[in-house]
Amino acid sequence: MALPSPSYTITLRVQVPASQRATSTVVGAVADAGAAVTGVDIAHSTPAGLVVDVTCDTVDTQHSEQVVATLEALDGVHVLKWSDSTFLLHLGGKIEVALKAPITTRRDLSRAYTPGVARVCTAIADNPDDARRLTIKRNTVAVVTDGTAVLGLGDIGPAAALPVMEGKAALFKQFAGVDAWPVCLDTTDTEEIIAVVKAIAPVYGGVNLEDISAPRCFEIEARLRDELDIPVFHDDQHGTAIVVLAALVNALKVVDKKLADVRIVVSGVGAAGNAIIRLLKAQGAEHIVAFGRGGALGPDTLDGDPHRNWISANTNTDRFAGALHEGLAGADVFIGVSAGNILTGADIARMNADAIVFALANPTPEVDPIAAAETAAVVATGRSDYPNQINNVLAFPGLFRGLLDVGATEITTELMRVAALAIADVVADDELNSAFVIPGVFDHRVAESVAESVAEAVRAVAAPPAPDARTASGRRPGASTSLAR
Amino acid sequence: MALPSPSYTITLRVQVPASQRATSTVVGAVADAGAAVTGVDIAHSTPAGLVVDVTCDTVDTQHSEQVVATLEALDGVHVLKWSDSTFLLHLGGKIEVALKAPITTRRDLSRAYTPGVARVCTAIADNPDDARRLTIKRNTVAVVTDGTAVLGLGDIGPAAALPVMEGKAALFKQFAGVDAWPVCLDTTDTEEIIAVVKAIAPVYGGVNLEDISAPRCFEIEARLRDELDIPVFHDDQHGTAIVVLAALVNALKVVDKKLADVRIVVSGVGAAGNAIIRLLKAQGAEHIVAFGRGGALGPDTLDGDPHRNWISANTNTDRFAGALHEGLAGADVFIGVSAGNILTGADIARMNADAIVFALANPTPEVDPIAAAETAAVVATGRSDYPNQINNVLAFPGLFRGLLDVGATEITTELMRVAALAIADVVADDELNSAFVIPGVFDHRVAESVAESVAEAVRAVAAPPAPDARTASGRRPGASTSLAR
Repeated sequence: MALPSPSYTITLRVQVPASQRATSTVVGAVADAGAAVTGVDIAHSTPAGLVVDVTCDTVDTQHSEQVVATLEALDGVHVLKWSDSTFLLHLGGKIEVALKAPITTRRDLSRAYTPGVARVCTAIADNPDDARRLTIKRNTVAVVTDGTAVLGLGDIGPAAALPVMEGKAALFKQFAGVDAWPVCLDTTDTEEIIAVVKAIAPVYGGVNLEDISAPRCFEIEARLRDELDIPVFHDDQHGTAIVVLAALVNALKVVDKKLADVRIVVSGVGAAGNAIIRLLKAQGAEHIVAFGRGGALGPDTLDGDPHRNWISANTNTDRFAGALHEGLAGADVFIGVSAGNILTGADIARMNADAIVFALANPTPEVDPIAAAETAAVVATGRSDYPNQINNVLAFPGLFRGLLDVGATEITTELMRVAALAIADVVADDELNSAFVIPGVFDHRVAESVAESVAEAVRAVAAPPAPDARTASGRRPGASTSLAR
Repeated sequence: MALPSPSYTITLRVQVPASQRATSTVVGAVADAGAAVTGVDIAHSTPAGLVVDVTCDTVDTQHSEQVVATLEALDGVHVLKWSDSTFLLHLGGKIEVALKAPITTRRDLSRAYTPGVARVCTAIADNPDDARRLTIKRNTVAVVTDGTAVLGLGDIGPAAALPVMEGKAALFKQFAGVDAWPVCLDTTDTEEIIAVVKAIAPVYGGVNLEDISAPRCFEIEARLRDELDIPVFHDDQHGTAIVVLAALVNALKVVDKKLADVRIVVSGVGAAGNAIIRLLKAQGAEHIVAFGRGGALGPDTLDGDPHRNWISANTNTDRFAGALHEGLAGADVFIGVSAGNILTGADIARMNADAIVFALANPTPEVDPIAAAETAAVVATGRSDYPNQINNVLAFPGLFRGLLDVGATEITTELMRVAALAIADVVADDELNSAFVIPGVFDHRVAESVAESVAEAVRAVAAPPAPDARTASGRRPGASTSLAR
């Protein structure tokens, strides 16, 4: 049964009689209605009585309305208005543009704008690499969506997707100091999306694709990687894959098994499943069987879809044929990126001893995590209310921080592997156990560690350092004013 | 002769002997070299002597280098390094993305991001108008360029244009609290620019086109106005036109002439000239003759260009034919948006008594403003070092502030006229004189006054208030949580 949560916090402004007992009656009634009261404030006193603000977590919108009705039914109590904290937080949006330095005098204006800015423009026209030094490109990422696969909501369009992209931009800044900007596209045409992202690219040092439905996301990502000179990342694919690999590396330590030896079952062969399989193979996994809606993929199931065909050709070398629950027999690892409630605890019980179960469908996992934990050694989900949350926010902020810091021009599979291992390494040996295979999302060590590892890996490939890497450090203060040492 | 300016401020780090006189010798040498010293700080002391930071304004880059050479020539003095304040200010760009509320706890995360954000997305999907209430769209403007006509620099491309667009975004925020974001397009194709701006529009409540060369700017603006449901503005045209009208209205008060009566000469028939003529006519000007490179336009000079043809067909009803300097004879007003130094004081002397001269070519005006002032009653330029600076920053921040405040869907000529009169009205009767026909750019009354007048004009047209106008006020806190009064 669902519990009250901060996603459904409401504040009720209630008029009550001016009696000793009135406030406690109201608070008691809210609690009896199943809501969790988190705050009570007297707003003011009127001739008709007191006006009290009651803040409480509820289960959902219907429950919020029940709480209001409960109070309205009390004698002498009147709900003047009520508001929803999540909506209040979103009024006017979650991010804004800020000036790094104020423009309050003519002196400021002549430097930040005309006439001084003309020299900066000329410097970049003469030396295009200077854009990474003298503009926001150095620290800025585009968060690009067409709104076709937003959360579990599906194709809700670009305007309705904007709150998610704003949230993503907020997380980029909060967790890694990256300036990210929402680009919500009013087109779902693959070629047009590619053309638009290429056209707007001069402002950005990287592109984070988000919530674009398969199979278009594959083509869009591949083409942009090819045609742009900045890193392009599809978070739904690679962000998930990085965090899954990080959690799996640590989970295997807990059960003392080797990645190359374990039998891995993947449920879901869309964008995330595809990327997870590629990254697991890059790290050395050898026994993977992937299941789509039609059962196991393998060398005998090639069809017209090139992305599924890649999986068919590169997994299931034993040519297992059958349904998912059959495939679990004798498996060591289950990774679900498919749909809720497709397996039972009994299915998980067929797996090998010390099984690892990552049931990542959201909000309802592939198998009830409590039931899975009856036999599995390690269970992870995408949810925050169980241990071991697989959350992409562990990956993308630090990854882009590292890429921007060295002016990287692409994201390779090797860099994703490095990022995953950096996340895994944050969990110290004495912290590691079956309920803690992955750091918490608010662990500030994660983004720093990922950024440093990724930057170092880029630098190691590019020796001597690329010009971008040098200029990004800001050590050279002006094309026409190089240091006269 | 050019004077030292804050656009060319440098800081020199200089090692000098540890003597009583050394610092003053250095400061004296910098001043003798023609630079204006604005600061001297002892950085630290070393066995070899003192290290001193000297900050000074110079005339240009060459002059900066002369100052360095002058110091290097002094006995015992060594310039350790020097840096340029304008470039230092630009390191890493001038704007950033900021969170309106931090995300530091799970409670914050579940409201700003998953799972809470899903309800906000659903609310917008159900009611698209809510995007103006629950996202950054309410306060955000795209500053769009293709980098083809940047300042006086011409076609320098989108990356080199970015410092100007960042500066513009900074001014939007500083002067009117508008969140503006640079969109620098790596294409100069008219159709592609239109397609890209339409594609990215869901995030924005308005579009400010900037530094796009004519004649493409006309087509791009007209099509976007037609095809988008948010205001589209080309600052190089309409921003300039608004401020010119504002200044002219006040200048005419100074000389006690009526707009409908005066003979107006416009030099320059590009984007700015075209917009100025349209706005002057909207305000009631009746006698305008415009000059291009080939002389006066008029009913007899129709050619293939539709934008010049509009001018030819709508001005010069007396069919004056001839060169610009001839056309000035008997004119009351000269408005130049063309090229530097094309007229002399003698040309201006042919104008009527109490002539008004707006010589707006930048950085070199059409006529030397000192020479013009020998006979003209009011002289304005685009420069800050003479009285009466015609600066677009007087118009665009307040204009968009007003449009966003009421959720306006378009910018009409009438709104531009309202904005111009609001700027003019900021100058009180007892402030108005020939050297003060337009407020200074840092006069905080301007943006407020323009915003209020524009908002009021939009509201007056849309009575009863449009849904956008109501939702933009933020009075309704949640689609699923309307007030239970």
